[in-house]
Amino acid sequence: VTATDAVEQVGAREALDALRAVVGDDHLLTDTAARATFEQPWRGAAGSALAVARPADVEELRGVVRVAVAHGIPLVLQGANTGLVGAGVPDGTGRQVVVSLTRLDRIRELDVVDRTVVVEAGRDRESLDQALAEYDLELPVDLGASPSIGGMVATNTGGARMLRHGDMRRRTLGVEVVVIDADATLLSDLGALRKDNGRLHLHDLVVGGDGRRGIVTAAAIEVELRPATRTTALLVPSGVDAVMHVLDVFERGSGHALSAFEVMSDTALGWVRAALPAVADPFPAGAPALTVLVELSDRDASRDLEGLLLRLGSELAASGHLLDALVVPPRTAWTLRHSLSEAAALCARARGRRIFALDVSVRRSRLPALIAELERVVSDDTSGRDLDGDLELGHFGHWGDGGAHLLLSMSAGATEHDISSVRRELHEVVAAAGGSFSAEHGIGPHNLASYLTFVPAWQRDLESTVQRLFDPCALLGHVSAGPTT
Amino acid sequence: VTATDAVEQVGAREALDALRAVVGDDHLLTDTAARATFEQPWRGAAGSALAVARPADVEELRGVVRVAVAHGIPLVLQGANTGLVGAGVPDGTGRQVVVSLTRLDRIRELDVVDRTVVVEAGRDRESLDQALAEYDLELPVDLGASPSIGGMVATNTGGARMLRHGDMRRRTLGVEVVVIDADATLLSDLGALRKDNGRLHLHDLVVGGDGRRGIVTAAAIEVELRPATRTTALLVPSGVDAVMHVLDVFERGSGHALSAFEVMSDTALGWVRAALPAVADPFPAGAPALTVLVELSDRDASRDLEGLLLRLGSELAASGHLLDALVVPPRTAWTLRHSLSEAAALCARARGRRIFALDVSVRRSRLPALIAELERVVSDDTSGRDLDGDLELGHFGHWGDGGAHLLLSMSAGATEHDISSVRRELHEVVAAAGGSFSAEHGIGPHNLASYLTFVPAWQRDLESTVQRLFDPCALLGHVSAGPTT
Repeated sequence: VTATDAVEQVGAREALDALRAVVGDDHLLTDTAARATFEQPWRGAAGSALAVARPADVEELRGVVRVAVAHGIPLVLQGANTGLVGAGVPDGTGRQVVVSLTRLDRIRELDVVDRTVVVEAGRDRESLDQALAEYDLELPVDLGASPSIGGMVATNTGGARMLRHGDMRRRTLGVEVVVIDADATLLSDLGALRKDNGRLHLHDLVVGGDGRRGIVTAAAIEVELRPATRTTALLVPSGVDAVMHVLDVFERGSGHALSAFEVMSDTALGWVRAALPAVADPFPAGAPALTVLVELSDRDASRDLEGLLLRLGSELAASGHLLDALVVPPRTAWTLRHSLSEAAALCARARGRRIFALDVSVRRSRLPALIAELERVVSDDTSGRDLDGDLELGHFGHWGDGGAHLLLSMSAGATEHDISSVRRELHEVVAAAGGSFSAEHGIGPHNLASYLTFVPAWQRDLESTVQRLFDPCALLGHVSAGPTT
Repeated sequence: VTATDAVEQVGAREALDALRAVVGDDHLLTDTAARATFEQPWRGAAGSALAVARPADVEELRGVVRVAVAHGIPLVLQGANTGLVGAGVPDGTGRQVVVSLTRLDRIRELDVVDRTVVVEAGRDRESLDQALAEYDLELPVDLGASPSIGGMVATNTGGARMLRHGDMRRRTLGVEVVVIDADATLLSDLGALRKDNGRLHLHDLVVGGDGRRGIVTAAAIEVELRPATRTTALLVPSGVDAVMHVLDVFERGSGHALSAFEVMSDTALGWVRAALPAVADPFPAGAPALTVLVELSDRDASRDLEGLLLRLGSELAASGHLLDALVVPPRTAWTLRHSLSEAAALCARARGRRIFALDVSVRRSRLPALIAELERVVSDDTSGRDLDGDLELGHFGHWGDGGAHLLLSMSAGATEHDISSVRRELHEVVAAAGGSFSAEHGIGPHNLASYLTFVPAWQRDLESTVQRLFDPCALLGHVSAGPTT
């Protein structure tokens, strides 16, 4: 133990005592066992935290921030811990304090006539949705996982129904934020107005902030009436180039009834078949190269959406754009769709392989060509990494919004360096097509190298400037992109 | 002429020469007559500019900015000059240069499959919409006027169909901005991705910026397919408290087919009858206290929207919430709706009265009570201004989004001070209800006092900080709110 280490240990002990005084003994976790679930991300390697603080409310949270600023303790914010880029878990230094927001989970206000809800950041999507369902309302930003509202604000989640309902940026009408300064200044802008152009909105600065623009403690969100009728089908397009025509015909023919347009690859569906036999397999003879999940839904219960779907499907079959169309119950379709990630992970484990996920986007007009190019790059293995055809790509995603999730499987021998270089190579293909290396996962440590490569310096500088407004001592998160000037 | 004046005149002459060298003799307007249309706002008193510069393209615009920064010339940005808060016209000092953006009007790119357009800031809404119509597309942010796209971005226009289509914030996928610095730095972020959470978006910082966060030169916008069927009706609710129930029944019964829900007062409709006899009068026996314009529209041409509308209307008549319902052609309904402002102005002129407009919003659940309270305040004349019942209020607006336009008429003898004090009094009522003094008009000089009164200091400081990122010398606009710290 060096003198510096000793001084640091004394400082850390003092900080922990101060944090304990704020949140109470039961909610400052310092034991290895107690910390573990907060250190382990949903996918990937665990980090190591100095402690986990679980404040009960905004005032305790502010107390945590005051201690962190006074002692210079770096903080990592965690909601439901469903993130996929490592932003919600500590790094390996053992010096960060994880601030878990799950106890800030109150619905502060639900205005049914206004169709707005003010909800705390630690509330998870599913349990918010259950509460809304009692009033025939829903948060229509839908996805397989159940992240916290704070996490959804931080990553500007879009999900599978963004096509009709927009992302969190579109639905957030206000936020409450704790600034990481000596006073833990509380900024509150929760008026929940749809129209208000009399001032700069706080939420415009923090939505999509990757957990690095202060701590969002609550959000005012515009919610929707739940659909009264819904029909789903699995469509088999004649090829990748036919998909956008299928989308066009559905948009022109069904308008706002179109609530999802998802595409899944044969490799991805193969993983489900192999790993999750309990999930209904719509293609017992083997999945086609691409499958489209299309959903029509409406409040107007009198609409014959299945008839509309069959009519549009027949039209597309007649024009040669569809090879097949199966009407399946919504639950069947979405169980299949939402099991893809889990199936990929299970398959990889069973086969002793590693798996990692990219989440890219591009203008939807360029998506078919991008997918074809990504598949070519994966199979050609042009990187010189000598993976001998080891790399496997299963993709699925929100083609109606230009988004595609890429699940990549590699043999167990693949190193972190191998993964990074594949990520970099595929991100380069996406960037060349004018796309984004992170459609909705955020930046976090996993995408930091791509952030530094593909986002121009002026834009990173601007982001650093905005971050400093909310976190002047740079204590939040462990991405240290830093200003370039 | 003092020595200071003389020095200033020499400086101004040099600046004008430099501007002339940039935009050419024909496009630097210094004559009183040539300047006049750029100095006169759509409504209200004219200002006086040093000159009007009309750059042909972004490079000329950057040249104008370089001259302005070098000479310390304050700039006022003007698009189609349809603004209602004075932000687009010069003040009375004769020292500002108006930068007219109308020559930057190109559609740079239209991606039909992607449903996105990249358009320059000076293009006006109607002519953009005409170009889009050739592809069966539309910009669904609809309003009576035809502002420039830059103006719509600056004020985050929502319009009459925001209920379904959102505002400019929701539809803008990217912007290009000229920073007001010595280099006239050009920041371009026009990738037009729907999903991109890998960086801070430039448009999050500038949409709704009131023309004071750099100069927006182009925007990438998500457009929509035009509806294939549309039906409109005028509904007569049984009272102000019935309106939100009518909205609720339409939202629950017709879902996303509901594309507008506008309310008009009897006073406002009376102005149309008096001033615009060519506009069809749906209520020859006199307008009811409130009239709702409801529009259903859809891409699915096979839908019987009129049947749906009549069914919901009958239901509401049976429950006592509607007294009457007239199905009228969309053109008739919208001509009536969009003639309210013009009729108010014509009426006021004919009767020798002054008119001014407020544009407020509140949670829609609170709108009926707010309107009742505003009408009470206007008729009670509690301000002690001794207006002897002079004040007249006609209102109309987007009740589905919580927005209400208030048109106020006063006798010719009313002073600017009288108008300011009425504005302040009504804005206080709105603020007490948790509403906004500017739903979508922006701030500008007309709303500056309310901005300083009703927006908290921390939020104004934040706004000043963001403005300084794009306009470090504070040359843009003539609102000088300034930092409070």
